[in-house]
Amino acid sequence: MYKCDLGRMSEKIHTFSKFGDAGHGGITRYSLSPEAIQARDYFKERMEKIGAIVTTDDVANMYATLPGSEPGLKKIVTGSHCDSVKNGGNYDGILGVMGAMEVLETIVANKIPHRHDIVAMIWTNEEGSLYPPAMMSSGIVCNDYLPEDLRGNFKFENMMKSKSVEDGVTTFGEKLANFKYKGDKKNRLNPEEYMCDFELHIEQGPILEDEGKTVGIVDCVLGMFNYRISFTGQAAHAGTFPMDKRRDGLFAASQALCYLHEEIDKLNRPELVYTTGEIVCHPCVHTVIPDYVEFSLDVRHEDPKVLEAVRKIVLGLADKKWAGCTCEVKLAWERDTVYWNKQLVDFVQESADELEIPNMPIHSGAGHDAQFVAYMIPTTMIFVVTKDGLSHCEPEFASDEQCTEGASVLLNAILKADKLDDIAK
Amino acid sequence: MYKCDLGRMSEKIHTFSKFGDAGHGGITRYSLSPEAIQARDYFKERMEKIGAIVTTDDVANMYATLPGSEPGLKKIVTGSHCDSVKNGGNYDGILGVMGAMEVLETIVANKIPHRHDIVAMIWTNEEGSLYPPAMMSSGIVCNDYLPEDLRGNFKFENMMKSKSVEDGVTTFGEKLANFKYKGDKKNRLNPEEYMCDFELHIEQGPILEDEGKTVGIVDCVLGMFNYRISFTGQAAHAGTFPMDKRRDGLFAASQALCYLHEEIDKLNRPELVYTTGEIVCHPCVHTVIPDYVEFSLDVRHEDPKVLEAVRKIVLGLADKKWAGCTCEVKLAWERDTVYWNKQLVDFVQESADELEIPNMPIHSGAGHDAQFVAYMIPTTMIFVVTKDGLSHCEPEFASDEQCTEGASVLLNAILKADKLDDIAK
Repeated sequence: MYKCDLGRMSEKIHTFSKFGDAGHGGITRYSLSPEAIQARDYFKERMEKIGAIVTTDDVANMYATLPGSEPGLKKIVTGSHCDSVKNGGNYDGILGVMGAMEVLETIVANKIPHRHDIVAMIWTNEEGSLYPPAMMSSGIVCNDYLPEDLRGNFKFENMMKSKSVEDGVTTFGEKLANFKYKGDKKNRLNPEEYMCDFELHIEQGPILEDEGKTVGIVDCVLGMFNYRISFTGQAAHAGTFPMDKRRDGLFAASQALCYLHEEIDKLNRPELVYTTGEIVCHPCVHTVIPDYVEFSLDVRHEDPKVLEAVRKIVLGLADKKWAGCTCEVKLAWERDTVYWNKQLVDFVQESADELEIPNMPIHSGAGHDAQFVAYMIPTTMIFVVTKDGLSHCEPEFASDEQCTEGASVLLNAILKADKLDDIAK
Repeated sequence: MYKCDLGRMSEKIHTFSKFGDAGHGGITRYSLSPEAIQARDYFKERMEKIGAIVTTDDVANMYATLPGSEPGLKKIVTGSHCDSVKNGGNYDGILGVMGAMEVLETIVANKIPHRHDIVAMIWTNEEGSLYPPAMMSSGIVCNDYLPEDLRGNFKFENMMKSKSVEDGVTTFGEKLANFKYKGDKKNRLNPEEYMCDFELHIEQGPILEDEGKTVGIVDCVLGMFNYRISFTGQAAHAGTFPMDKRRDGLFAASQALCYLHEEIDKLNRPELVYTTGEIVCHPCVHTVIPDYVEFSLDVRHEDPKVLEAVRKIVLGLADKKWAGCTCEVKLAWERDTVYWNKQLVDFVQESADELEIPNMPIHSGAGHDAQFVAYMIPTTMIFVVTKDGLSHCEPEFASDEQCTEGASVLLNAILKADKLDDIAK
C-alpha cells in the first residue's frame, strides 16, 4: 500500500483556500473568474513541476497527464472542479482536484510504477453558480452518451448562451471565448482514449461523521427531480384591501410548503430528502400583497417508487386553490439513480480496507460531474467525511488528515485499476 | 355648487398616464426620474397658463399658487404626489395632483371668487420606491411637528443619504442636488403661511365600490406597525443533509407565517388588515437549505387595543424555535391613528351631499403625505372609488367621471374653507 503525504496535501489545501477567500473561512470562486484562474495557474505550475503535460479542451476543462510505462493503454483520469457556490467552502470540488494532484505527486515522489497514463483533471463550471446549469462542462463533454432528456439540457450551443445570474447580460460563451484556459475540442475526455474515471469528493452530509468513518465507498448518485411551483393571486395595497378578498401569493406558497412537508413526511422514508431552497416573490414590497410567488422543490431518493410517491403529492398541489391563488407545477429536470462501476467500487473498498481507514458504503445525494462521465466510461467516487455534514457554506470542513486519507484511498484504487488493460463498461 | 370639467380632467388623466407608461396600462414613475420631470413640466405648463405662480422648495416639492382677493390671509393647499411604485397605476398620487390642478383651472375658467391664495401641490417621493422611506418629503417638511419617534425617522440629513434600491450607491441627496425642480427651503409648506390642506386620493380598496359609492369622506388614517421577522438556521446541501438534522430557514418562515394567520384571525376583527409583502431568503439557491429568511409584517387598525393584541402574537414568535431555527422579531416602525380636522371633514361631507354624489365615511388604511401635514396644519382627505379595490398595480382604475366628481367635491370643500379667515388646529 502507498500513502499520500500529509504535508504536501496541507500545502495544497491552504494555498487553494486563498483563491477567492471570502473572509469568513470560505471562498467565492465562480467558474471563469480571476480567482478560478489563480487556482488553475497553481494547478498547472505544480503539475508541470512533476513532469505532467497540461492540456485544456474547448470548454476549458484542464488535464495534467503523467505518462505511464505502456503508451498503448487507455488513460485513467481523476479530478473534480475548482469553482464554488457563493460563500462556499474550501473542499467541495477542489478536494477532488487536490486529491488528483496528490496522487500524481505521490507517484512521482515515490517513483511508483504505473502502466497507464494517469490524468489529474479540473472540470469547468460544475456549480453553475454564475452561469447555470450545474455540471455544465461534463454535460457538454459527455453529451453524446447521456439519456436523451439530459442530452437536450446540455447542448453546447445552448450552454454558450447561458447568461450571468449577476448581470443578466454576459454569456458563458462570451466569457469562455477570452478565458486563459480555453483549449481545443480534440483534447476532451473521450471513451477511445480513457479507460476509467475516479472522483474524490467530500460527503457534504453528516452520515460518515455520525458513523465514525473517514471514507465513504460511494455506490450510486441518487435519482432526483426538481419542480418549480408557482402561485398566482392579485396584487393590492396592504393597508386598504380587506383580508377576506385577498389572493395572497406568499400566504398561498407558505401554506403549500407546510402541506408538502406534512404529506411527504407521511411517506415515512428516512433516506428521502426534499428541499425548497429558492423562493421568488413579486413585487416583494412590504406594502403590497404579493401577486406571484414561485419556489423550487428538489427531491432525492435511490428508489424510483419513492420518487413517484412524492411526485404524486407535488402534482396534486395544482388541483386546488391556495389562499385563493391558482397553483402551477412545472418539472424543471429529473435524473435517474446512477450506479457506479462495480469493479471500481470494489477497488475503492479494498484500498480503504487495506489502508485500515474506517469506511462504509454510502449513496451520493449530490450530483457530480462523475455521474455524467459514468454514461461514457466506467466511473466511481470516493467520499471524505465532512464536519457536521455542512457544505455549500463557509464552515464546510474536513481535516488535512482526513483529506490525505481520502487521497491515499484514491491512489491505491487507481493503482489497482492500473493493473488491468481495460475495463468493461 | 360648482362642478369641475370632465373633458379637462380626462385630458390630464390621459396625458399624465404617458409619463412612465410601462406598457401594460400602468406606469413606473420613480421620484426624481426623467418621467417625473415630464409630469412636473406638464404641471408647471398648465398652472402657469392659468396665471398661477410656480415655486419649489429644497426637497423639490412644487407649489402652484393662484392668488386670492385678500392677500393677508393664509393659503389653502391641496395636492398629492406624482411618483409611483414599480408597475403602479395611473391614479395613486397623481389623482390628487390632477384634482388640485382641476380646482385651480375651474376657478379660473369660471371666474370663481376666492379670498385665500389657493395652492396646487406636488409632493416629492411619496412612494419611496427607489429611495426609501415612503412619505419622505412630507416627513422632512413637517419634521418639527411630528411625534418624536417619527421625527427621528425623517431627519433631513439622513434622508439625503437614502440609497437607491436599484444600484445601492446613488443617494437621494445626490440625485436631488442636480434635479431640475430643486428650489429654496424658504418655499416649504409652513403653518405661518398656510391655513389648511386637502388631499384627494383613490381609495385603493374595494369598500366604496362594494357599497356603491363614488366618494369616501375620510375620517382618519389607521394606526399601524411594521415588523421584520427573521429565522436563522443552518445552510447545508439539499441532496445530502438528512431531514431530521435540518434547520431550514424557509420552512421555519412558512410555518410561522401560517401560524400568524391562524392566530391573528382568531381575534376576529374584520377591519384588521395584515400583510407579509416582502420576503428575503439566503442564499436562495435550489440546492441549498436556506440559513436565513426574513419577512415583513404590516398590521393596520384604528383601535390601538387591537394593534396591541396583534403585537402580542407577533412578539410571541421569538419565544419558540421554528423548524429548529431561532426567531428574531424587530419593530421597523409604527404610527398612531391620525384623525382629520373635524371642520374640514364636515366641509367634504356637505360638498358631496350638495353635489348629490353617493358617499360614505371611510378610514384610510394607506399612509399619505396628508397625515404628516395634519401634525402641522388642519388637514383632511377625500377618496375616490377604485375598481376592484386594486392599487399599487397596473390594473388600478377609476373612471374619468369618478375622478371628476372627486375633484368637484374637493373644489366645493375648498370654497367652504375659503369663507373662514382661519381654522383652529
